[in-house]
Amino acid sequence: MRFRLTPRETSFYELFAMAADNVLSGSKLLMELLGADAATRVEIAERMRAAEHAGDDATHAILHQLNSSFITPFDREDVYRLASTLDDIMDFMEEAVDLVVLYEIDELPRGVEEQIEVLNRAAELTAEAMPRLRTMEQLSEYWIEVNRLENQADRVHRKLLAHLFSGSYEAIEVMKLKQVVDVLEEAADAFETVANTVETIVVKES
Amino acid sequence: MRFRLTPRETSFYELFAMAADNVLSGSKLLMELLGADAATRVEIAERMRAAEHAGDDATHAILHQLNSSFITPFDREDVYRLASTLDDIMDFMEEAVDLVVLYEIDELPRGVEEQIEVLNRAAELTAEAMPRLRTMEQLSEYWIEVNRLENQADRVHRKLLAHLFSGSYEAIEVMKLKQVVDVLEEAADAFETVANTVETIVVKES
Amino acid sequence: MRFRLTPRETSFYELFAMAADNVLSGSKLLMELLGADAATRVEIAERMRAAEHAGDDATHAILHQLNSSFITPFDREDVYRLASTLDDIMDFMEEAVDLVVLYEIDELPRGVEEQIEVLNRAAELTAEAMPRLRTMEQLSEYWIEVNRLENQADRVHRKLLAHLFSGSYEAIEVMKLKQVVDVLEEAADAFETVANTVETIVVKES
Repeated sequence: MRFRLTPRETSFYELFAMAADNVLSGSKLLMELLGADAATRVEIAERMRAAEHAGDDATHAILHQLNSSFITPFDREDVYRLASTLDDIMDFMEEAVDLVVLYEIDELPRGVEEQIEVLNRAAELTAEAMPRLRTMEQLSEYWIEVNRLENQADRVHRKLLAHLFSGSYEAIEVMKLKQVVDVLEEAADAFETVANTVETIVVKES
Repeated sequence: MRFRLTPRETSFYELFAMAADNVLSGSKLLMELLGADAATRVEIAERMRAAEHAGDDATHAILHQLNSSFITPFDREDVYRLASTLDDIMDFMEEAVDLVVLYEIDELPRGVEEQIEVLNRAAELTAEAMPRLRTMEQLSEYWIEVNRLENQADRVHRKLLAHLFSGSYEAIEVMKLKQVVDVLEEAADAFETVANTVETIVVKES
Repeated sequence: MRFRLTPRETSFYELFAMAADNVLSGSKLLMELLGADAATRVEIAERMRAAEHAGDDATHAILHQLNSSFITPFDREDVYRLASTLDDIMDFMEEAVDLVVLYEIDELPRGVEEQIEVLNRAAELTAEAMPRLRTMEQLSEYWIEVNRLENQADRVHRKLLAHLFSGSYEAIEVMKLKQVVDVLEEAADAFETVANTVETIVVKES
């Protein structure tokens, strides 16, 4: 049984909004990666690393506040899952960019831009939804749409895998590219986990 | 501290039994996959997708009831873990079938039928055990046996990996087949997680 | 709200210290693996399997006590996460050794010894920190240093991947070696999860 006092903690909302804005910055960097030359990619990877560090700070602030608060605006486990999954998304996006630079991948296979567009759309929806956690209103459109996007990401990902294994690529190249598209798929799954956690929070309140 | 009122919620038990029956249907489809020709495999993949959707519905019903119930028959975290892990099993089984079709795998390596038989046996035991959650009786045989099956699955999986890497297969073929046997191993691990969660529930009650 | 009685349960501390000592034994076996010949590797794998079984027993004892205790020295979810992540570390280390034997890997790529040294240092720090859970003192140095080690492990791991994909290895060989270095990286991540859980416990208490 949780007790609720008025006023509730407010800064959780602000911190979640910050974390989601940061994820959106990351997804925009992924968009920039498409078609960037080798020098620009290195520079994008540096900016992505900075965004990931900013995300770490937001996560740390949320968890610190969670651990030191007697009262939280929603269940502790949901605060924890929301913060850590937003953090995971940043980690996956940073890893994707880093792998492209590290493996000196010349050309990303067709379909990756579709994966990244889906991630970017999910990031926009997530950044718009987080501030609405305060009123808990108009959130169902968000989680329904993110679930739909994750299904779309899944189809794109499997089509990409079939393409990678079709015989057009050398085995080593397949391994490199597969690691990139798999980590982008993990990011898409993590957006769905965030949306499902928001749904859980709203259902508990209603 | 949880409070318990009489009568407890009953439908959690029914929903878990439904989810486990559905997992059993999935494992039977895996059995059918062995030795099926290409056309039949496509048809099996469709039925598997339908089973996975039915599983999603059962999971959603459990989580919805969990989030809207003040009182639950066992700890919320255990209800959550049980529902989401049963859901994971269906996802892994569906993915395995889908990959076989997607990669147009001609022949599954010897040993896969052993993996699938172990999964099918674990599914039978799980489907039989779920209705016994109501009385909490005769469950230790179930979790001991599923733990034993997981160890067996682990040995079969490692033997399969050694076989795949033995030089009999092209690199690209190894990658495809490894993905299939890895996802089947993930399903076996998830059966063990379900069994461990049931053990946790029973120990807390005793 | 947790109630606390005096004296608190003491054996959780002892059990965590045992589990961490066991992890340290495992990391020492990894150190022995470096430079061992084929026959010695088989013998190391056997000792590692015994260490993993001892770890399973410690985990089981912790979870059994957790499930049957009304009062725990820190939050149940933290006890659970600490125990299961220490268990994961042993599993990853055992898997790494087993894969080296199973795949009959002749020579581990340069960089693996660095991965293993980082793991061994993290294991030493973890084994030293666990007994301090009782007083909750002098733990911040531990988690800060393990986080630093995980960052170092991450850099070593990515450098290793770039090396594996550089063209010096056959595709099948890359796959085998990648699996070994990936599982060692998972062990490094798990040490960080343990450290973060300890931080969570301490912050809640302060």
